[in-house]
Amino acid sequence: MGRVYNFGPGPACLPEDVLREAADEMLNFEGSGMSVMEMSHRSPAFQGILSDAQQTLRELMGISDEYDILFLQGGASTQFAMVPMNLSKNGKADYLVTGSFAKKAMQEGKKYLDVSIAVSSEDDNFAYVPEVKGLAFREGIDYVHICENNTIYGTKFWTLPETGSVPLVADMSSCILSEPVDVSKYGLIYAGAQKNIGPAGVTLVIIRKDLIRDEVLPYTPTMLKYSTHSKNNSMYNTPPCYAIYICGKVFKWLKKQGGLSVMQDVNQRKAKLLYDVLDESNLFVGTAHKDSRSIMNVTFVTGDEQLDAAFVAGAKKEGLVNVKGHRSVGGMRASIYNAITIEGVEKLAAYMRAFEKEYKK
Amino acid sequence: MGRVYNFGPGPACLPEDVLREAADEMLNFEGSGMSVMEMSHRSPAFQGILSDAQQTLRELMGISDEYDILFLQGGASTQFAMVPMNLSKNGKADYLVTGSFAKKAMQEGKKYLDVSIAVSSEDDNFAYVPEVKGLAFREGIDYVHICENNTIYGTKFWTLPETGSVPLVADMSSCILSEPVDVSKYGLIYAGAQKNIGPAGVTLVIIRKDLIRDEVLPYTPTMLKYSTHSKNNSMYNTPPCYAIYICGKVFKWLKKQGGLSVMQDVNQRKAKLLYDVLDESNLFVGTAHKDSRSIMNVTFVTGDEQLDAAFVAGAKKEGLVNVKGHRSVGGMRASIYNAITIEGVEKLAAYMRAFEKEYKK
Repeated sequence: MGRVYNFGPGPACLPEDVLREAADEMLNFEGSGMSVMEMSHRSPAFQGILSDAQQTLRELMGISDEYDILFLQGGASTQFAMVPMNLSKNGKADYLVTGSFAKKAMQEGKKYLDVSIAVSSEDDNFAYVPEVKGLAFREGIDYVHICENNTIYGTKFWTLPETGSVPLVADMSSCILSEPVDVSKYGLIYAGAQKNIGPAGVTLVIIRKDLIRDEVLPYTPTMLKYSTHSKNNSMYNTPPCYAIYICGKVFKWLKKQGGLSVMQDVNQRKAKLLYDVLDESNLFVGTAHKDSRSIMNVTFVTGDEQLDAAFVAGAKKEGLVNVKGHRSVGGMRASIYNAITIEGVEKLAAYMRAFEKEYKK
Repeated sequence: MGRVYNFGPGPACLPEDVLREAADEMLNFEGSGMSVMEMSHRSPAFQGILSDAQQTLRELMGISDEYDILFLQGGASTQFAMVPMNLSKNGKADYLVTGSFAKKAMQEGKKYLDVSIAVSSEDDNFAYVPEVKGLAFREGIDYVHICENNTIYGTKFWTLPETGSVPLVADMSSCILSEPVDVSKYGLIYAGAQKNIGPAGVTLVIIRKDLIRDEVLPYTPTMLKYSTHSKNNSMYNTPPCYAIYICGKVFKWLKKQGGLSVMQDVNQRKAKLLYDVLDESNLFVGTAHKDSRSIMNVTFVTGDEQLDAAFVAGAKKEGLVNVKGHRSVGGMRASIYNAITIEGVEKLAAYMRAFEKEYKK
């Protein structure tokens, strides 16, 4: 079998050009005589890889010098603890609960802080992102936390909560780099790489420098302090070098595509292809409320589990893989991150129409 | 330039066969139509990669079912906190301080426990591992911690401390898989992969199951609990899939070489080649006490910094790279992990002899 169209939610498909380059350089990176996997993290060659990755990301996202870019380990799940441990001053934070990962973040936060749920959409199985305009937060909180795109439920915050001088913390694992972002609206952005950045095993943190403090909660492990990594430019200990190298290649690839405005345009077109099918269909129903629809994860059901299974199996035969939905929503989910081409989405849309036609016979 | 002989202390060289396979499989792993980097960690293909890796390691090291094998993130530095957070019952532990990483582990342990230094070799810049026969530990401690091989100083514990029923915890980052080990002597073994296992970004933990407890220190992050990862077979969240895949290939490569007894023989021969040069030399001096000498990291100096620099520069010209010693010891260090061939070490030994001859002129 040749390369498939991989609609998995993460780890997810990567640009083929990136993989080809990585394969070519596997035994000998740029004449160094070794693989990037074998390279000292303190070597000039790897220092170049790291600083290139940081610099390209800075350009892509328009990240000002007020922010640090860190490459950490442990995934978003580790950030669920690092955020409260590091940002706590008054010991209070508000969370918006719009999915199971947002909820996990909130629950982990409770271990360390007085946490309040500002709003939740659990009443409708997280099928929507609540209205946040005018949403009030408690006095004296250290931050407001959101999960900006909810991979499982196919929803996204299209308006950010107004937090005033309170830092907004966003888990952007499944929407980062999908469109331009005004980083200055956030105190801290974090994202596991394995959806829209690179391979699993590296976590991107973009943090406003004034939020990096030595005075964290007293029992915070050294490795879980942002200040440890900031002071050492993500080199306090050996970073996940190879994963960072691949991320750097993805950043360069995005720049070559024309940057995040171009990606936004492509991603909107890709999402529209699928949402148009859903809106015209008498078989498929999108599970996310229309005004909350994600352009990265498109979730839908037929309402019949056997039919869903037949759809998933048939898609696989067409080389359209990993379209099974998460068990908490059921049905199907197409994750259409940056590396998914328009051609891939067109094939999926065509298959959806053909499946419906066949079913209606 | 072709492939070099890379004597770096970590990230370190990997078997060329492993890299070739990884390059070949980069775009399409075993007909899956995708790279392992793109693969869902919940997919049967990746589940196979993970369980193969665990099973091969179990065979190689003779790990009984009493132990769990975990693939975690954050490096040995994160274990410095996880060990006390998870193993604390009485809130007391003893540490043997035989190098800067052993000291870091001890210092991190102090954040959480009443820590005592059972013995230290800092008096002689960690040039030796102290006699441990008959070494006494405090009553009621939760564990004894050692760093079994000290990468920077080129020393190794050739006798283990007698801890009786107290769990022995060992940082084996730079000696794991270099020789057979009686795992049953340890409560917990941990190792950053980037020296003798695979690429940076994954940490191997071998832990006796009775030490995996839900009752950890109350402020322990979910991601820093061994029980979280044990219950979910290292899949609580997305693991560093690609790094695990490479580790699995290294384990298979070791099995193909004949296993750890064969590696021990090869490693002893490699080390002897270099130590023989040192012992016969009038120029080079080994920095580690003879009875503490590591077979993985060979440290030596000429006593003249300029000459050391000339040696390092000359070696590089011969394709023998990363032989500069750590700043806290100075001089040179040849890390001769499993993936370094006898031919590579012979070349280094020959270069050392030639350098000395040239110098004596």
